[in-house]
Amino acid sequence: MQPTIIHNDSCTFTVWAPEKNSMILHLPDERRSIGMDKCSDGYFRIKVPGVGAGQRYFYRPEDQADRPDPASHYQPGGIHGPSEVVDHSRYSWQDDKWRGLPLEELIFYELHVGTFTKEGTCSAIIPFLDDLVSTGINAIELMPVAQFPGTRNWGYDGTFLYAVQNTYGGPHALKQLVDACHQRGLAVFLDVVYNHVGAEGDCLPFFGPYFSDKYQTPWGKAFNYDGPWSDGVKDFIIGNVLHWADHYHIDGLRLDAVHEIFDRNAVRIWDLLHTTLRKWQQRSGRPFYLIAESDLNSPRIVAPPDRGGYGFDTQWMDDFHHALYVLLDKDGIKHYKDFGRLEQFAKAYTEGFVHSGEYVTFRYRRHGAAAAGLPGYQFVVFNQNHDLPGNRPQGQRLSVLVDHQRLKLAAAAVLLSPYLPLLFMGEEYGEDAPFYFFSDHQDQRLRDELREGRKKEFEAFEWSREPPDPQDEGLFIQSKLQWSKREQGEYRLLLNWHRQLITLRKTHPLLKDLSRNNIRTDLGRSILAVHRHNSDNSRQLVVVFNFSDQPASYRLAYDGANRWVRILTSHTQLPELVYTGEEISLPAWGIGAYDLDDTSINTLRPSALTMPSAE
Amino acid sequence: MQPTIIHNDSCTFTVWAPEKNSMILHLPDERRSIGMDKCSDGYFRIKVPGVGAGQRYFYRPEDQADRPDPASHYQPGGIHGPSEVVDHSRYSWQDDKWRGLPLEELIFYELHVGTFTKEGTCSAIIPFLDDLVSTGINAIELMPVAQFPGTRNWGYDGTFLYAVQNTYGGPHALKQLVDACHQRGLAVFLDVVYNHVGAEGDCLPFFGPYFSDKYQTPWGKAFNYDGPWSDGVKDFIIGNVLHWADHYHIDGLRLDAVHEIFDRNAVRIWDLLHTTLRKWQQRSGRPFYLIAESDLNSPRIVAPPDRGGYGFDTQWMDDFHHALYVLLDKDGIKHYKDFGRLEQFAKAYTEGFVHSGEYVTFRYRRHGAAAAGLPGYQFVVFNQNHDLPGNRPQGQRLSVLVDHQRLKLAAAAVLLSPYLPLLFMGEEYGEDAPFYFFSDHQDQRLRDELREGRKKEFEAFEWSREPPDPQDEGLFIQSKLQWSKREQGEYRLLLNWHRQLITLRKTHPLLKDLSRNNIRTDLGRSILAVHRHNSDNSRQLVVVFNFSDQPASYRLAYDGANRWVRILTSHTQLPELVYTGEEISLPAWGIGAYDLDDTSINTLRPSALTMPSAE
Repeated sequence: MQPTIIHNDSCTFTVWAPEKNSMILHLPDERRSIGMDKCSDGYFRIKVPGVGAGQRYFYRPEDQADRPDPASHYQPGGIHGPSEVVDHSRYSWQDDKWRGLPLEELIFYELHVGTFTKEGTCSAIIPFLDDLVSTGINAIELMPVAQFPGTRNWGYDGTFLYAVQNTYGGPHALKQLVDACHQRGLAVFLDVVYNHVGAEGDCLPFFGPYFSDKYQTPWGKAFNYDGPWSDGVKDFIIGNVLHWADHYHIDGLRLDAVHEIFDRNAVRIWDLLHTTLRKWQQRSGRPFYLIAESDLNSPRIVAPPDRGGYGFDTQWMDDFHHALYVLLDKDGIKHYKDFGRLEQFAKAYTEGFVHSGEYVTFRYRRHGAAAAGLPGYQFVVFNQNHDLPGNRPQGQRLSVLVDHQRLKLAAAAVLLSPYLPLLFMGEEYGEDAPFYFFSDHQDQRLRDELREGRKKEFEAFEWSREPPDPQDEGLFIQSKLQWSKREQGEYRLLLNWHRQLITLRKTHPLLKDLSRNNIRTDLGRSILAVHRHNSDNSRQLVVVFNFSDQPASYRLAYDGANRWVRILTSHTQLPELVYTGEEISLPAWGIGAYDLDDTSINTLRPSALTMPSAE
Repeated sequence: MQPTIIHNDSCTFTVWAPEKNSMILHLPDERRSIGMDKCSDGYFRIKVPGVGAGQRYFYRPEDQADRPDPASHYQPGGIHGPSEVVDHSRYSWQDDKWRGLPLEELIFYELHVGTFTKEGTCSAIIPFLDDLVSTGINAIELMPVAQFPGTRNWGYDGTFLYAVQNTYGGPHALKQLVDACHQRGLAVFLDVVYNHVGAEGDCLPFFGPYFSDKYQTPWGKAFNYDGPWSDGVKDFIIGNVLHWADHYHIDGLRLDAVHEIFDRNAVRIWDLLHTTLRKWQQRSGRPFYLIAESDLNSPRIVAPPDRGGYGFDTQWMDDFHHALYVLLDKDGIKHYKDFGRLEQFAKAYTEGFVHSGEYVTFRYRRHGAAAAGLPGYQFVVFNQNHDLPGNRPQGQRLSVLVDHQRLKLAAAAVLLSPYLPLLFMGEEYGEDAPFYFFSDHQDQRLRDELREGRKKEFEAFEWSREPPDPQDEGLFIQSKLQWSKREQGEYRLLLNWHRQLITLRKTHPLLKDLSRNNIRTDLGRSILAVHRHNSDNSRQLVVVFNFSDQPASYRLAYDGANRWVRILTSHTQLPELVYTGEEISLPAWGIGAYDLDDTSINTLRPSALTMPSAE
């Protein structure tokens, strides 16, 4: 994608429209209309003197209606208004010391800009960053910020892939946020949608063949990555990745639903992305990570392109959530009928995909392939994300579905896993505000379709209650975090528990090792014991989970020469306890971590050994 | 696919219909209707005593209309009639000595059963097999024989993938043909269509979700290889491959348009096919080859599945034809506007795909990826196939588009290439009957659509003449081969030229080596010189082509210690000539092959040195 370029005293406007014969640049404030020149590569260009940052403009393909720039960097008045020229060189970055973080160390925090604060802007997030850092978070992952219809949306209805949502504060506010993050050691990831665009305000078809008639996504036509003119579409997407990397210093992208991106060509969008980003990383000296949301349970997602893979660095693993959630909430089985056995969660823990070729009743087919050989950092796990409360009719988070003990167990399961953990904003203190699905479409037909569509969807999933109308602004307001809860009672205890878990994860050498070569599980009736060890077994760690509302016990293998040291537990006030017997007991939903090396007490940081109720 | 099984005195009928609640087996001759039992795997089954080979039957899904068996092995009355039980164990095979042929040695002969002989049946081909063997052919590739509508069709409108066309003689005749081939050392390949089925008589949707709403092919909905219930569809296709291998002793399949087969799942149809055939080959001790027709110019087609490939043994290379044809017929440029330069044909010769990432105007996008590292036997090349005359309005073969000299050059280009050569039936003697596109649909709407569709297609390709109506039976009759021409005048000379070329290909060690490590080209204004050599250069061969209607010369590198020996030439009567000078001259469209090793005269078989006009 060749961007609009600002020179000292002029601006070159560029727009791709390979099948259009003419294009007019319209500057509405000056009432000027300027014909553009079509170049052989399908782009229209025109250099306009005396124009710079802040200039508002429309394009008019073949003298039809005014349309905003498909590659607009800013839509100050929303999706239906003019585009505005942005001069990225004007922002003065203060993050020159930032070098990025190793993939294996990332602890993600998924954040929706509109509901994280009362103000709902990027700038308003900044005062909260130190709290996140103190919790142990080192990477925030913003739900999509690309310009969407109206003032509130999850972000998956965006139509201007290069623009930062005006109600989030636009381009400047996002840069300030990223800058502030980097200065605090926080990486920033962005969720981007390259499989479809929102139905309202989609001006792409007025310019070029962005969409394919060949493939159908659940949300409409797929992007045209392999048909006639698809080079321009690929340029548009590759350009978008570089846009976030270069102009916003973003550290990586989470690509929404990559299974709805279709490209059968010999050189796929995946091959181009991989090559482009390898060069970018060489040039910048910083890492840039690609994270996939995939519904395929396929190891090919993280295989390199030269082995036929998609080349992602890591991928979300839904199976981990499903397997875990159904163990915590018996009602979960209604919606996740292919889960519910403890050994499935053990498999998620050690192998990855629970469905690795088995028949899945929900899908009416065999699903997935084995991921056993892959290192743990190629998966991102969570016990909730935006989708899970959002796709419940009443927007319930896990915190209102299960009790405090189970929340603690769930947090430990995620944070002590051999995968990259992701928390959904507010989860760390057990936020109990709902997270509703909400939108702000202007188009009445779309509003009706959306409302009816969700109704049907929920019926199909046998939810007993109808979902509320997503257009209701109250849903958005109710979904906002109540940050002050963090300092109160059980919320505070849960927050401290998360801090402890993250500290242990960051400091214990066996937990830092995400190779998954050092892990095995042991199953009881309700017990899952996860054993980790180093190469000569001189160091061992056992994390024992009790998935039951009854107490349970587990026999730790005991070697006379060593002692097991309990270094973390969810259920007792003792700060430390040397365990010399053979059997440990856990209360309902209890967890405990036991270290074989009796020197570990001294090498671990004290905070890892401080029990929640002691604070 | 679990087949209908015949026991001593009964027959078990099996049909897949996972979403149907009931199924009736209807035996029309006996006026019996029998309810079938639905099993948990989505198949209906019933064992019926007293029924065996020859039994005619219909299925009646959910008590609706009578439908033939989707997996019918025989449709004696055509696509709309009843299915017939076939007992494959009754055929007594005589080919137990057959062990198959190495891939590198195959010389393909594409054959359309309906037009190869006056009778148009499989049995009628048998008397001609010895002629094919004497020409040097060792593999016939049958255009699709799966039951299609009416009495004449190329075969790509087939609707019963397991049945052998009734007008071709049905199952028994195909077995006889394969048996006769194997006894003569001929392998038999079958063209199969796994991307769509014909519109007329498609009964699959009455039984199960065979087709996908997600993907669109140029011929309608794609097969459902990855959606709900797709395991059954995969079983149907994998079962079909095994059906031809087991019941018909077929040596391999050519899969039509694999780029219109869509499967995004973690375990794709390609992975299953590969695994299944590896096991089959281990069990049978015979090779079974998969050949792809692909429009992707992608090396992934022949890459193994564990490297993300499709796992085909070899693939058709259209670029070779296009690059060659446009050099021979200047009018060709009108329809192949992205070809026409001699260096493109040189690239096709040494590297493979001509379009390996370049922008292609015909496609409005960059196309293909480099195939330079792949061995030559991973490509099949031709200077015509059924599609090329068939897709010209008047069905012209190459033989009526260019003169005798150019036909000889084209034959040499294909047969001396480092790829697997394919001849289209009759090409070896320059058959000049047309090969029309023809069909025999009963459905008037389809007839009209087909006629109008082809008209539009030809307009888009700027053909000046309208294509005839494919339903016209005269087209079918006119497309039949006139075998007796083989013994006459220039036809006979061309046939002998093919024999010479094939003999040279089979006997010269440098031509037998298809690694493509031993090849380089040298280009003049109209000259293409293809150098082949062994590892220490002690043996060398140069094939020089003159792509011009003017004479041209070429300087052969000359080493005092050796002589170049002309071992083959298209244009002189001398049976052999030691060439000692530095420059050779070629007449218009001439070709010559020169061997550096002066012992070659003695080691080559005499027939390779016999010039056409000397016979």
